[in-house]
Amino acid sequence: MQEVISKTIEKIQPVSPDLLGKAQAHLDKLTKPPGSLGRLEELSKRYVSIRNEKSSTLEKISTIVFAADHGVTAEGVSAYPSEVTSQMVMNFLNEGAAVNVLANHINADITVVDIGVNFDFKDHPNLLHRKIASGTKNFVKEPSMTYSQAETSIITGIQIAGESAKSGVDILTTGEMGIGNTTPSSAIYSVLGKTRVEEVTGRGTGIDDSALEKKIAAIKKGISLHQPDPNNPVDILAKVGGFEIGGIAGLILGAAAENIPVVVDGFISGAGALLALKMNPSVKDYIFPSHKSSEPGHKIFFDLLGHPPLLDLNMRLGEGTGALLAINLIQTAVKIYNEMATFQSAGVSTQK
Amino acid sequence: MQEVISKTIEKIQPVSPDLLGKAQAHLDKLTKPPGSLGRLEELSKRYVSIRNEKSSTLEKISTIVFAADHGVTAEGVSAYPSEVTSQMVMNFLNEGAAVNVLANHINADITVVDIGVNFDFKDHPNLLHRKIASGTKNFVKEPSMTYSQAETSIITGIQIAGESAKSGVDILTTGEMGIGNTTPSSAIYSVLGKTRVEEVTGRGTGIDDSALEKKIAAIKKGISLHQPDPNNPVDILAKVGGFEIGGIAGLILGAAAENIPVVVDGFISGAGALLALKMNPSVKDYIFPSHKSSEPGHKIFFDLLGHPPLLDLNMRLGEGTGALLAINLIQTAVKIYNEMATFQSAGVSTQK
Repeated sequence: MQEVISKTIEKIQPVSPDLLGKAQAHLDKLTKPPGSLGRLEELSKRYVSIRNEKSSTLEKISTIVFAADHGVTAEGVSAYPSEVTSQMVMNFLNEGAAVNVLANHINADITVVDIGVNFDFKDHPNLLHRKIASGTKNFVKEPSMTYSQAETSIITGIQIAGESAKSGVDILTTGEMGIGNTTPSSAIYSVLGKTRVEEVTGRGTGIDDSALEKKIAAIKKGISLHQPDPNNPVDILAKVGGFEIGGIAGLILGAAAENIPVVVDGFISGAGALLALKMNPSVKDYIFPSHKSSEPGHKIFFDLLGHPPLLDLNMRLGEGTGALLAINLIQTAVKIYNEMATFQSAGVSTQK
Repeated sequence: MQEVISKTIEKIQPVSPDLLGKAQAHLDKLTKPPGSLGRLEELSKRYVSIRNEKSSTLEKISTIVFAADHGVTAEGVSAYPSEVTSQMVMNFLNEGAAVNVLANHINADITVVDIGVNFDFKDHPNLLHRKIASGTKNFVKEPSMTYSQAETSIITGIQIAGESAKSGVDILTTGEMGIGNTTPSSAIYSVLGKTRVEEVTGRGTGIDDSALEKKIAAIKKGISLHQPDPNNPVDILAKVGGFEIGGIAGLILGAAAENIPVVVDGFISGAGALLALKMNPSVKDYIFPSHKSSEPGHKIFFDLLGHPPLLDLNMRLGEGTGALLAINLIQTAVKIYNEMATFQSAGVSTQK
C-alpha cells in the first residue's frame, strides 16, 4: 500500500478515555438531571475530547462533495441519465441544490471535488479538479478501476482532510454525487457486511422493479466475476467501487488522523466509511453518524460503526444533506457543554 | 365552558388539502428525485400551507415556557425538591439553562410564564406574571385545581398565542418547568390514552424504584378518587392536571386558531397537546412533533397525534429543549421549499 495511506492509518488513535471522563464530569455539573440530555451529551463529550482544545467550539464547517461517474450505469441501474452527475455539479456550484440550502443555513463551506466525472468543468472557486478518470469502468465486465487508481482516490481524500486541518476546519461533513453510485455502494456493503446482495440493494433515486432486478444482477455478477477480497478494502474499491467512495474513505481516514470529527452522510458515504473502518477500526471514534437513509443496506453501517443514526427522516438524496442536518445537533451539544450554568453558579438545588 | 375557549375551539379548521397539493407540486419541481427529502417535504408542505402567505419564511420563533408547582410532590414523586421550580425559572431568566442555549442558537425569543409557581418573582422583561395559584393542590387528597382555575389556565395559553400572532410570530414552541409535573402528565396520558398507570409512568428526572412506586400509587389514587371524565379535558385538567399543562393546551389551541404552527416539546407538553386534541382533533394539523422522550407513556401522544417524532435522542429534560432542536428541521425544510432550484431553472435532466 502506498506510504501516505499506511502512515495515515498508523496515525489514528482511539479518543482518550481520560478526556471523555473529564468531559462527562463537566456535563454532570450543569443545571439538568444527570444524563437528561441523552445523546447530546455523548456528542458533546466526544467532540470536545477529539478537539481537546482549551475551549472547543464548532464554527468552521466544511462540506466535501465528491463527484464521479459510473460505468455500471450501462446496465440500466439508475432512474436518471449519467449526464445528471455533471448537471448537478453545476447546480452545486450555482448554489441551487438541497446541499447548498442546508450548507448556507449553517454557514458551512462547500467544496465540490471532481474526482471522476465524465465532463470537463471550467475553474470555479468551489471546485477542486482531481479527476482520476472520466468515470469508472462497468464492473459487470471489468474492474471499476485499477488498484493504483483506487489508492489515488483514497489519497485524494486524505490530502483534502490535511488541507482542511491546515485551514482550521472544526468539523468535516461528507457528501457525494454520482448517478448510479448506490450500485457500487451496495456491492461494498455486501462484501464488507457479509450480506446477500438482495438485502443491501434498494431503489436509489427511485427505480422500478425491473431496474432493481438489473441492479441486483449487476452487483452479483461484478462480485462473482472479480471476487473482491473482504479483508482488503483497496481491492474491494478497485473491483466494484467508485472514485467518490474512495475519496470519502480517504477523507474520513485523514480527518481521524488530524483529530477532526467527521459527519458521515447517507448510504454512499457509509460505503466509504466502511472501507475506512476496515483499515483502522479506531476511525469509529471520529465518525459522527447522521441520518438513516431509506436504502435497506444502510443498517449494516450503523451496526459496524456501533453508533445509531441521529436522524431517521426517510431521506434518500445524498449530496451531504443528511450530514448537514446532523451538524445542528452536534453544534447544539457543544454549545450546551460550553454555555450552560452549573448548579453551583446558578444556585439551583441538586437531587435530594 | 367559558366563551373564549369555545370560540377558539370553533375557529380551528383543518389545513386545506388544496394548499397541501399545490405545495407538493412545487416540491416535485425541485432538483431532487421526487420524495427524496422524506419527512422534510411533509414539514415544509404543512408549514407553508398553514401560513399561506405569499412567501412563507420561518424567522420569528417564540418559545413559551410555562412554570408551575405541584402539590402532589408531597407524596415523594420527584428526585428534586419543589424549590427547584423557582430556581430554574431564575436560571431561565439569567439565560443559564439548556433551553436558553438552544433558543439563543436559533435566535428564538423565550417568554417564561409564571402560571402557578410557589414564589413571588420580581419583574423581568422575559417573565409574564399570570399566577393562578401558588401551585396545585395534592391530587391524592383533593382535586389539583377548581374547574374555573383549569379554564383560566387554558385561557392564559390562548391569550399568549393571540398576543404572539399580533406580534408577527412565525412559529411557537412549547416548554415547561415544574418539579413533579411528570406525575399529573402521566395521569392525563392514562385517562386520555385509556392505558394502565404503570404503562405511562416513568422515572422523570431520575427517581429510584421506591419513588416510582409512590408515583404510580399517587396517580392511581388521584384517578380513582376523582374519577376524571375522559370526555371532558377541562375536568381531567382540574382533577389531576397542572397549571402549566393547561397553559400549554391553551397555547396549542390558540396557535391553531391563529394559523400559527406549534412545535410540541416532550412528555409534559404532550399531555397539554392531548387535552387540546381532545377539544378539537383538527389541532393535529398545526402541531409539529419534536422528540420522543424517555418517558414510556410518550408513545401515546404520537399514536393519537398521527405524526411520528422527528428526533429520538434519549432526552428527558423538558423545558422546551426538544422542540427547539426540532425547529432546525422545520426551518431547513422551509428554506429548501423557498431556495432550491427547479429542474428547469438549473438545466438538470429529469427521470428517464
